[in-house]
Amino acid sequence: MNGWCGSSSVCRFADACLRGIAQVMLQNNPLTGALFLAAIVWASFAADAWRLAFAAILAVVVATLTAQWLRFDSTEIESGLHGYNATLVGLTLATFLAPGALLWCYVVFGAVITVIVTRGTFNVLKPRGLPALTAPFVLIAWLMLLASYGFAGLSGTSLPSGAVVGAYQAYHTEPLDILGFAQGVFKSISQVFLKSDGIAALLLIAGLLVSSPAATAFAVGGAILSVATTHLLGAESDLITGGLLGFSPVLTAITLGTVSYRPSFRVAAYAALATAFTVVVQAAMNVAFTPFAIPALTAPFVLVSWLFLLPRLSLDETNAPSTSGNER
Amino acid sequence: MNGWCGSSSVCRFADACLRGIAQVMLQNNPLTGALFLAAIVWASFAADAWRLAFAAILAVVVATLTAQWLRFDSTEIESGLHGYNATLVGLTLATFLAPGALLWCYVVFGAVITVIVTRGTFNVLKPRGLPALTAPFVLIAWLMLLASYGFAGLSGTSLPSGAVVGAYQAYHTEPLDILGFAQGVFKSISQVFLKSDGIAALLLIAGLLVSSPAATAFAVGGAILSVATTHLLGAESDLITGGLLGFSPVLTAITLGTVSYRPSFRVAAYAALATAFTVVVQAAMNVAFTPFAIPALTAPFVLVSWLFLLPRLSLDETNAPSTSGNER
Amino acid sequence: MNGWCGSSSVCRFADACLRGIAQVMLQNNPLTGALFLAAIVWASFAADAWRLAFAAILAVVVATLTAQWLRFDSTEIESGLHGYNATLVGLTLATFLAPGALLWCYVVFGAVITVIVTRGTFNVLKPRGLPALTAPFVLIAWLMLLASYGFAGLSGTSLPSGAVVGAYQAYHTEPLDILGFAQGVFKSISQVFLKSDGIAALLLIAGLLVSSPAATAFAVGGAILSVATTHLLGAESDLITGGLLGFSPVLTAITLGTVSYRPSFRVAAYAALATAFTVVVQAAMNVAFTPFAIPALTAPFVLVSWLFLLPRLSLDETNAPSTSGNER
Repeated sequence: MNGWCGSSSVCRFADACLRGIAQVMLQNNPLTGALFLAAIVWASFAADAWRLAFAAILAVVVATLTAQWLRFDSTEIESGLHGYNATLVGLTLATFLAPGALLWCYVVFGAVITVIVTRGTFNVLKPRGLPALTAPFVLIAWLMLLASYGFAGLSGTSLPSGAVVGAYQAYHTEPLDILGFAQGVFKSISQVFLKSDGIAALLLIAGLLVSSPAATAFAVGGAILSVATTHLLGAESDLITGGLLGFSPVLTAITLGTVSYRPSFRVAAYAALATAFTVVVQAAMNVAFTPFAIPALTAPFVLVSWLFLLPRLSLDETNAPSTSGNER
Repeated sequence: MNGWCGSSSVCRFADACLRGIAQVMLQNNPLTGALFLAAIVWASFAADAWRLAFAAILAVVVATLTAQWLRFDSTEIESGLHGYNATLVGLTLATFLAPGALLWCYVVFGAVITVIVTRGTFNVLKPRGLPALTAPFVLIAWLMLLASYGFAGLSGTSLPSGAVVGAYQAYHTEPLDILGFAQGVFKSISQVFLKSDGIAALLLIAGLLVSSPAATAFAVGGAILSVATTHLLGAESDLITGGLLGFSPVLTAITLGTVSYRPSFRVAAYAALATAFTVVVQAAMNVAFTPFAIPALTAPFVLVSWLFLLPRLSLDETNAPSTSGNER
Repeated sequence: MNGWCGSSSVCRFADACLRGIAQVMLQNNPLTGALFLAAIVWASFAADAWRLAFAAILAVVVATLTAQWLRFDSTEIESGLHGYNATLVGLTLATFLAPGALLWCYVVFGAVITVIVTRGTFNVLKPRGLPALTAPFVLIAWLMLLASYGFAGLSGTSLPSGAVVGAYQAYHTEPLDILGFAQGVFKSISQVFLKSDGIAALLLIAGLLVSSPAATAFAVGGAILSVATTHLLGAESDLITGGLLGFSPVLTAITLGTVSYRPSFRVAAYAALATAFTVVVQAAMNVAFTPFAIPALTAPFVLVSWLFLLPRLSLDETNAPSTSGNER
């Protein structure tokens, strides 16, 4: 499995961390992780915010070490299943909170807690046949961002401001041209890692391609569908072209399209339905979180994926009732 | 079972849809569904809003078709168990959002999603011996109403406005006379279908009567108890006489009184306790939803019913410890 | 077990009630309950609010009677497992709502409901190996406090006022001297019973000591750790010295340190991690509840304890992998 590592424990550890980054998009592949990491590093460099890449790396390393220290199942650790939630926690804390010594303590602390919560989430969901997805990340990041409002040592400089829910404001909406459409599609993919960057999106697509062409197709298709749906429903243009309504649908499309069912037309139709509903839930949660002054993160993806996995539908074509009836 | 239909598939389909409407008040009876539908049509006509009745019918038809397309258990479909949540989703969307082409797409979309979520809810709750009640409706309607604030294409013209929770305002409270009391009782029943209409209430009571006299007794008793309780606690008079604090208690009374336990004095006392608590939870959720600018819908009914069903109490009189002790 | 009671049913009933009060801090000991009750009575007397002690006693008596009336398992009743949530509900309602005849009806009603909800919570959690902790109290108290905003008969005179979440305000923070530190530690313990009183804290510590020296050590250690953590992160000084960020961490420390795992260094480290995270979650929930104008109560304790119990880690030293390997 780790053929390129041989017996080097450092190399095996790096492999687990890279797979942890790849698992953010549900891939178990170190090369994918390396390309995803390249996307993070590039976008951090482009935004002149090196600390974002550093936070992601610090978090995944701490999380993998914690999982080893707590003697979790080694197959899980080596597949990166204890790294992806922490990676996202690190990225999120560094994105929304002001830099400083306390931030780094907070990132390390968050990574450790995330590993414990991920283990518990697995215990709850596995008997039900459900994947944990990014639920541990969402829970821990919400709590840690909310808490920053109560502590002078942590300043949420980039958090949204709170408000009660008000009637729809006539946003600045303009007809979405082909350029805006493409921008929305690419940034929907890069926003999975909280980045608004086209080159990062290309690196992420490359990373998906080396692991799974089907996942790549569903990711791009999900992004296209989400941009089209949000535009049709009349969402704010800046949110669409910034990819801020598309990252959850992208993840839903990958999850429903590739992880759980064998590809087919019925599978694609079911995944498309889930993806379109994720767009609605993303808009809903953005509204619901207005009074709390924190972002909804990927909660819409987690909720909709669970809702669509719970029916445990058999969508294989071969299960279609045969018209000849001689198999009954 | 479908004796009046014979082998007509159209008739069997209509039967399933009517039972779907009847299941809103937990009845499995097509005549009940027809009388409930008459109540909806009458109230829509009286309010000069035909689209409400149309939305309910469209939603239940789409939901039943979707359940068939997804090849769900045919006994469930024929009992209307895949129709009642969608009926309520359709009514709710058409009640709170402005009319238009997008609204009808939204109703169809909501009905399809509701069927999928209902199937998943059954999967989660059945092993625990809990009914789904209107939980899928509540979840989907909340999300779709919240999302309307983010889309220019959907305007929530009839949604409440958002605010932070403030101290109790001295409402216009007046002594509740016998007329106001009766009005509150009837409208508590009609508000189960989001209607404020006395004649609709009479049609709903008639529908209950043809299916289950016990359910009728508990529905009316629950409405009376809720109006008395809210008046005693000092709720706003307009809310009481409009039935807006009573529709969840009515459903709780039916559920606890007839569906789950055999009728007896202990059962009635337990149902009355649950009904009174539903009044408190309705008031609590109305407050909790203030910042989100959406209604709580029947969430209080679902929550309290689950809380009172979970103990799995044996309330049969025959289980009372015998004093002679010779059965031990 | 009830040696001091003999066959007196009144005495056995009092024993169950006292154990119910002791279970607030997870102890099954009537003397502990008596000392805890002394703390409640003293603090009520000191604050010139006798009704608080009366509400606690009324609630635990009503709850124990209700559990008997509903014929719940007698071992559970005699261990006080149906009293502690109601005790806290009674204390909370009397603390935040204005006195009056309706308040006492509300306390009795709340105690009855809490017993039913506690039974259901046990049913849900026991198969998963999780304790109910104070979850029933938190849920019922939230709902009943929220509902008070909708009823003229119940006035939440001591409830916080609602607001949207705003950026961190530069609080009046001063260097925490040794006196403030000690005050924070003691009041963190007394706030478990919603009291801000040093003598009550000493009585509570005495109550813990007669039952479990380990629990006492973890309670005091948890209080010290929470005051240190909140000070380090820059929380508002008044909140720290008033113990308002420390009561949940104290309960987490007792739960993780003594109830679930055998004491050891690894257990203490794990409990310390959970306690520190409870501080963060307390701050987060205080913020999240701002728009609702009610307190978060001990929800952070419940959430974090569950999150840390769910992984079912084996933290015994003896389970460490042996280096000799001859046991494999």
